[in-house]
Amino acid sequence: MQTNQLKGFILRTIVLLLSVANFSYSGHISANHTTPKVYDPTWPSLDSRPLPTWYDQDKIGIFIHWGVFSVPSYINEWFWWSWKSDGSQAHDDYVKQNFKPGFTYPEFAPMFTAEFFDPDHWAQLFSKSGARYVVLTSKHHEGYALWPSSFGFNWNSLAVGPHRDLVGDLATAVRKTDVRFGLYYSLLEWFHPMYVNDMANNWTTTEFPELKSIPTLKELVNKYRPDVIWSDGEWEAPDTYWGSEEFLAWLYNDSPVKDTVVTNDRWGSETRGQHGGYYNFDDRYNPGVLIPHKWENAFTIDKRAWTYRREARLEDFMTPEELIANIVVTVSCGGNALINVGPTKEGTIPIILEERLTQMGDWLEVNGEAIYNSVPWNYQNDSITEGVWYTANQATTKLYAISTKWPGKELILGSVEGLTAGTSITMLGSSGELEWELNGSPARGIKISVPRPDENASKWAWTFVINLDSKGTQV
Amino acid sequence: MQTNQLKGFILRTIVLLLSVANFSYSGHISANHTTPKVYDPTWPSLDSRPLPTWYDQDKIGIFIHWGVFSVPSYINEWFWWSWKSDGSQAHDDYVKQNFKPGFTYPEFAPMFTAEFFDPDHWAQLFSKSGARYVVLTSKHHEGYALWPSSFGFNWNSLAVGPHRDLVGDLATAVRKTDVRFGLYYSLLEWFHPMYVNDMANNWTTTEFPELKSIPTLKELVNKYRPDVIWSDGEWEAPDTYWGSEEFLAWLYNDSPVKDTVVTNDRWGSETRGQHGGYYNFDDRYNPGVLIPHKWENAFTIDKRAWTYRREARLEDFMTPEELIANIVVTVSCGGNALINVGPTKEGTIPIILEERLTQMGDWLEVNGEAIYNSVPWNYQNDSITEGVWYTANQATTKLYAISTKWPGKELILGSVEGLTAGTSITMLGSSGELEWELNGSPARGIKISVPRPDENASKWAWTFVINLDSKGTQV
Amino acid sequence: MQTNQLKGFILRTIVLLLSVANFSYSGHISANHTTPKVYDPTWPSLDSRPLPTWYDQDKIGIFIHWGVFSVPSYINEWFWWSWKSDGSQAHDDYVKQNFKPGFTYPEFAPMFTAEFFDPDHWAQLFSKSGARYVVLTSKHHEGYALWPSSFGFNWNSLAVGPHRDLVGDLATAVRKTDVRFGLYYSLLEWFHPMYVNDMANNWTTTEFPELKSIPTLKELVNKYRPDVIWSDGEWEAPDTYWGSEEFLAWLYNDSPVKDTVVTNDRWGSETRGQHGGYYNFDDRYNPGVLIPHKWENAFTIDKRAWTYRREARLEDFMTPEELIANIVVTVSCGGNALINVGPTKEGTIPIILEERLTQMGDWLEVNGEAIYNSVPWNYQNDSITEGVWYTANQATTKLYAISTKWPGKELILGSVEGLTAGTSITMLGSSGELEWELNGSPARGIKISVPRPDENASKWAWTFVINLDSKGTQV
Amino acid sequence: MQTNQLKGFILRTIVLLLSVANFSYSGHISANHTTPKVYDPTWPSLDSRPLPTWYDQDKIGIFIHWGVFSVPSYINEWFWWSWKSDGSQAHDDYVKQNFKPGFTYPEFAPMFTAEFFDPDHWAQLFSKSGARYVVLTSKHHEGYALWPSSFGFNWNSLAVGPHRDLVGDLATAVRKTDVRFGLYYSLLEWFHPMYVNDMANNWTTTEFPELKSIPTLKELVNKYRPDVIWSDGEWEAPDTYWGSEEFLAWLYNDSPVKDTVVTNDRWGSETRGQHGGYYNFDDRYNPGVLIPHKWENAFTIDKRAWTYRREARLEDFMTPEELIANIVVTVSCGGNALINVGPTKEGTIPIILEERLTQMGDWLEVNGEAIYNSVPWNYQNDSITEGVWYTANQATTKLYAISTKWPGKELILGSVEGLTAGTSITMLGSSGELEWELNGSPARGIKISVPRPDENASKWAWTFVINLDSKGTQV
Repeated sequence: MQTNQLKGFILRTIVLLLSVANFSYSGHISANHTTPKVYDPTWPSLDSRPLPTWYDQDKIGIFIHWGVFSVPSYINEWFWWSWKSDGSQAHDDYVKQNFKPGFTYPEFAPMFTAEFFDPDHWAQLFSKSGARYVVLTSKHHEGYALWPSSFGFNWNSLAVGPHRDLVGDLATAVRKTDVRFGLYYSLLEWFHPMYVNDMANNWTTTEFPELKSIPTLKELVNKYRPDVIWSDGEWEAPDTYWGSEEFLAWLYNDSPVKDTVVTNDRWGSETRGQHGGYYNFDDRYNPGVLIPHKWENAFTIDKRAWTYRREARLEDFMTPEELIANIVVTVSCGGNALINVGPTKEGTIPIILEERLTQMGDWLEVNGEAIYNSVPWNYQNDSITEGVWYTANQATTKLYAISTKWPGKELILGSVEGLTAGTSITMLGSSGELEWELNGSPARGIKISVPRPDENASKWAWTFVINLDSKGTQV
Repeated sequence: MQTNQLKGFILRTIVLLLSVANFSYSGHISANHTTPKVYDPTWPSLDSRPLPTWYDQDKIGIFIHWGVFSVPSYINEWFWWSWKSDGSQAHDDYVKQNFKPGFTYPEFAPMFTAEFFDPDHWAQLFSKSGARYVVLTSKHHEGYALWPSSFGFNWNSLAVGPHRDLVGDLATAVRKTDVRFGLYYSLLEWFHPMYVNDMANNWTTTEFPELKSIPTLKELVNKYRPDVIWSDGEWEAPDTYWGSEEFLAWLYNDSPVKDTVVTNDRWGSETRGQHGGYYNFDDRYNPGVLIPHKWENAFTIDKRAWTYRREARLEDFMTPEELIANIVVTVSCGGNALINVGPTKEGTIPIILEERLTQMGDWLEVNGEAIYNSVPWNYQNDSITEGVWYTANQATTKLYAISTKWPGKELILGSVEGLTAGTSITMLGSSGELEWELNGSPARGIKISVPRPDENASKWAWTFVINLDSKGTQV
Repeated sequence: MQTNQLKGFILRTIVLLLSVANFSYSGHISANHTTPKVYDPTWPSLDSRPLPTWYDQDKIGIFIHWGVFSVPSYINEWFWWSWKSDGSQAHDDYVKQNFKPGFTYPEFAPMFTAEFFDPDHWAQLFSKSGARYVVLTSKHHEGYALWPSSFGFNWNSLAVGPHRDLVGDLATAVRKTDVRFGLYYSLLEWFHPMYVNDMANNWTTTEFPELKSIPTLKELVNKYRPDVIWSDGEWEAPDTYWGSEEFLAWLYNDSPVKDTVVTNDRWGSETRGQHGGYYNFDDRYNPGVLIPHKWENAFTIDKRAWTYRREARLEDFMTPEELIANIVVTVSCGGNALINVGPTKEGTIPIILEERLTQMGDWLEVNGEAIYNSVPWNYQNDSITEGVWYTANQATTKLYAISTKWPGKELILGSVEGLTAGTSITMLGSSGELEWELNGSPARGIKISVPRPDENASKWAWTFVINLDSKGTQV
Repeated sequence: MQTNQLKGFILRTIVLLLSVANFSYSGHISANHTTPKVYDPTWPSLDSRPLPTWYDQDKIGIFIHWGVFSVPSYINEWFWWSWKSDGSQAHDDYVKQNFKPGFTYPEFAPMFTAEFFDPDHWAQLFSKSGARYVVLTSKHHEGYALWPSSFGFNWNSLAVGPHRDLVGDLATAVRKTDVRFGLYYSLLEWFHPMYVNDMANNWTTTEFPELKSIPTLKELVNKYRPDVIWSDGEWEAPDTYWGSEEFLAWLYNDSPVKDTVVTNDRWGSETRGQHGGYYNFDDRYNPGVLIPHKWENAFTIDKRAWTYRREARLEDFMTPEELIANIVVTVSCGGNALINVGPTKEGTIPIILEERLTQMGDWLEVNGEAIYNSVPWNYQNDSITEGVWYTANQATTKLYAISTKWPGKELILGSVEGLTAGTSITMLGSSGELEWELNGSPARGIKISVPRPDENASKWAWTFVINLDSKGTQV
């Protein structure tokens, strides 16, 4: 390989680092809001809002699905729907076998006791996990509010069940740490009579959003000032029914969180991947390719449900390898990872989840520099070695190749070409520079000597750092 | 006494019978609605509506206080308020001693099981009691609806507790008998956030009546077509806040019960005894004098509460004597008697109440002709003998003197003067005519020979019938 | 009628008064126990024990059926048996409809809350009712002990349910009044494994009585010193299985209540009406003829069950007339009346029962002198007038004719013959002597002029007192 | 090193292998019971019984603590005792804050629902974990029987709570696998009145063992035929109180499990480490030295409790490293490892425990040949390298050095001396023979070249196999 080629490669690499980032998120990430803009309640205007920078930098969030569905904690959080609207035999059997005849879903609520809920413990765990933001289901499709909502008379966590303001208590605890606090909010409520009625009217009436859903959401924003509003339950009705544009205009212009809040794309039946803040697309969306708009992969450690399930088995839970691979692939493709845990009705986080989050924290402790504040590189996964994903850091011009599988004695990176001979390559968690050489003849990428696994601190995915700005000797 | 005097008296008596009736209720009782009138939403117009005739004729109703307050069934139906707003130590102690810490009022609702509720048994008991209409608390100040209200999401009897439509089930059962079905409805809900908020705004906002209270009431009327709407909970806010005039105009002009429904006077802080249909004034209102507007005495058999109380003692319950005296005095003064029973959370009517209602039925079986279809006479109670009250019947020109105490061997009626010598006087439940004579010299009223008590069928009040139209021999 | 005849009659009457009493109970009623006798554990010896005098004098007791069966309070106190051994569909349906699948009888126990149990109120009510002793089901066939029995680990009222010593608390309260305290005790326990096993062994093994039943009963006697031991549950096994003779010998010779305790006759499959103390024979035994051994009629005000039943109706309850007639007939025939009430699981006595007991008390207030301390007369019921029953008083030589129906204007007593002309006859609760004359010609009994019913204080049965010792003028 | 020395070492080694085993367990392990011996109820006779061979061979058991204490599942399984006898503030607070006043321990029992209990899943998990026997708490100190005991009326799992025979259901499931079924049994019951009474009598009375404890234990043995009886709760009273010798004589001579059953040493206040079958000594006994009598280390994965605790945190649970090290040390010193899990009241095994057991199974899958059927070697832990423990196999004359820490590139075994030069040394889970040489000069032990950790299948402890019988070349 010749000098010019190498120089060219480095240049290209750095340029790409910057340009990719600029390309992807130019319209959305902005460090300064020097001239506050006023947004119109129209998608073009709303979509022009730059995404507050913290969100793309922070990368890792914890999603918490908690609610009355945590009482049956069976199958998943759609319990009420599956039982009553889908006619699920499994749900019906479960209720018939464990409750007296005629038992109804609202009667689960007094059993949502949360007596072991220790918000500080949760917050510390989230912080230790390396997450930078938390998103709690303030109100899921069941309509039960985890705070004393004025619009949820006798169907909220102060009135029935925990007898406390779960949203407020967690917000306070989380804010004692370095983790941001966000809220999930379902626009719809499956069985709210107003919603059912509006649906029957083919969305020509808007009693539910006007009198219930949007006022409740505004109450939530004003009261708890979340940095994330994770909207959901939008799919059955158009954004015009929900009044989403008006709400977002208020949120961006007038709300107490107008400067920091991020939202997602679930604001109407046609908005996913089209409008709003970052994109969530579908649940567990993880396409494995670069997405040219900031996005988030919300996924569950229990692969089968968002809620705690009492019938779950070990095999349903992601291994640490799977969990970390999911994060790596997501971040490599420009996404944030929102990792879901389902607490129990008693207020505890199952130990297996505490363990996974702790493992994630251990991994990020070592490998976090490849994740936080990173940007996608010009390639996402390696062209030769399966399971290797790239991220980059614009400020330090470092390139990170993260191998989600243990590479053995040597690692071939087919996508890294034209390196200066003396380019420093290291492995996070392992001391010393690694030997490397061009791979093959004619060369295709590089081949790195991998240290013995007992000589590094990482257990589940291994980050190789290529210092693009290091002065290299020609090969 | 001379013939002319006597004739004059009879004439006067009969004229009075008619004129009193006409005086009292001329504007209100009308048998024919030949030209349906359209009412404006103004009190003068609404107040001009004649009271449907059935109401004055039927005289006796059963009031039923049933709701979530029947679960604690302690002290009275204001449990929630006393506990949470009045800071009652007794209520707080009761909850603290019998429930786990933090227990809330809505958590009583799942214990409202009504497993023994047999609406046909209730209906038959009410019919047997001699009552002609029933008024059920469809929604008390707690806001819990005894029917699956679209406006009471998860706070109604289908969603939580009985798992059935209590209003509908009782309506169906009652309508199989000869008893009319009516509904109590509290305009306010103590702890509904909208109501609390409107109050805080000094009634300048009307979210609660507009979005909750009036729509719910209309739903109730449309769905169950009650013959009585017994409004309550009006006192804190003016009628203009509640929109009472608009509601009543709708009720009288457009509702499915516009021809038969009767309402009371609880429609705003200034309406009692002023506007609406018949007047209730205060609870247990029983002034002992003629009221020149149709009215109703709503009172309780358990003298201390409207709800079933588990701590009640026998001495708290009206004796049959007291119960019947209350009815007699009320009807004599132009009122209807609405007699309250408090069922248990299990759906039973305490046997003591079944007994009282049965005793009332036994009494009305014998004495009902002095009650049903009666009108007040020119005197209400006798001028000499305490405990004697009069009613009259316009059609038969009979005068009834009801002695609420056993008179002993003879009964002096100081208010009955100028009778033709041969006027027939009988006692209901006893065969044969009674001997009588003028009382004293100069005569003041008459003196009737009373049969041995074992020779009549009445146990608690005795009706003497004076046949004003019988041909009399001069004295 | 001639003087001699009359004298002879009076003499005969008085002699009979004494002799009947002596005949009936000579062996059993004894005021003094000057020489304490030691009883052998054999029926002849045990049966020779005189019944402590208080029992025959006191006449009226209250029976209380309370236990875990008060939780379902459905159908009757044999709930567990009917459900599990008799395969009753009604019981099975009740449980299936109101509890979760698999629900068991012991799981009713925590719902036996007794939170409204006020033993002093109970005691005052019993005292006011005119009862002189109380018998509480300390342990019914279900085996649940209403006290912290050392032999009922986790199946007693301190361990599960009320969390208090119900026997002890009631004993203390009752002893503050003039009422004696007694205890019902079921020898058997339907589902106790030891009992079931002994039965399977055809009563050749005696594990249950030796280790459980008799030790428990002795604990009860030692701890609460009851004046009555009302044994039950004896019928499936012979007295030798139960060790009844040994127990009674201990009870009569060595127990702390040896001087005052009375027992009944339920001590083995062949003992009813044969051995023990007084005889109960069957439940609700009331033969209407004189029984030549002291006996007791244990009967229920709710005619269909011993326990409170939530499905009961008014018609199931004895009227005051029926209740008092039962007492009168029983006492007239030499029996005591043990009147059963079934409290609720909450610790209340249903108001209808409070009313009946109060009515009984009202009646005894007036008529008690014909009941307490009375003895049977030579005739029990009148030979001419139906519904008239006699008692007598040895000390005062008064004869009481109690008419359980209102006699109207005159009462013929066919069984009372040969009265001295001026014999004083009065009616309890009515002032003045009554006129009387011989009945018919030739005379058969006497005919008494009855006062107007409003001139006496009795409402449901009327006592005519014939003063046999009054100095009479010859007719 | 010289040939003779080496030969001598090998000989010594092999002889030791055999002799140690013979020494330790000569009296106790016997494959054939050709002449059944009859045991006297005396310790010398009972102690002479050879331990059935399966026990020493199988090495690994699962201990299950499940009972009513799993309902509060708070702090530990001594809940009742700590709360009521120790006056623990934490327990009292917990109950006061979460239950209504007066709540009692027996009232937890109906909440022991076990609705998710799937015994086949448990059994498969235990089998997969590599355990060869299971020991379930059939009855802990609370006295609640996990089977329908005839001696635990209404205080067992069929009567209250799960409504099933937990012992029987698990026995059946376990016996479908290759795992043996054993039962823990507490001799004492803290609050059983008979036990309390015997204690008060200074153990001079024996009602409790005679009537309750021993009969119950015999019922258990006869009904479920356990291969282990893990006695406990013996400490307060002497073996003579419990009748332990008599029971064991019955167990060894006459019971249906006389040929296979093993028991431990908890049979009276002076028996631990003295009498019975194998020795348990104290809970979590793990002395780190060879014990010259077969013993067992019963320990918990949650290091703080035997029961599931809802307040547990990840840090309370053994890591896989700790768990496996515990097993290794225990087996090396002649013990069996009985690893405890605490299921939930719902019948689930917390996922973290499922994970630990699965990890243990993964480890045993690779390393089991060093554990099962092994015997202690002449040294237990290495004289130079910390964390290395030895086992040996008599049949194959293999020596196993298990390093509980990753040794890095080379492992020095100071205690292995005199090896023939060509002795084959391998690592379990890694292919190929390892290079080794004498360690140092003069040599002290050997030095083994350790393969890269990614070249073996073991994750938490590594077994080096020294084939003592391989033909060696002299060094």
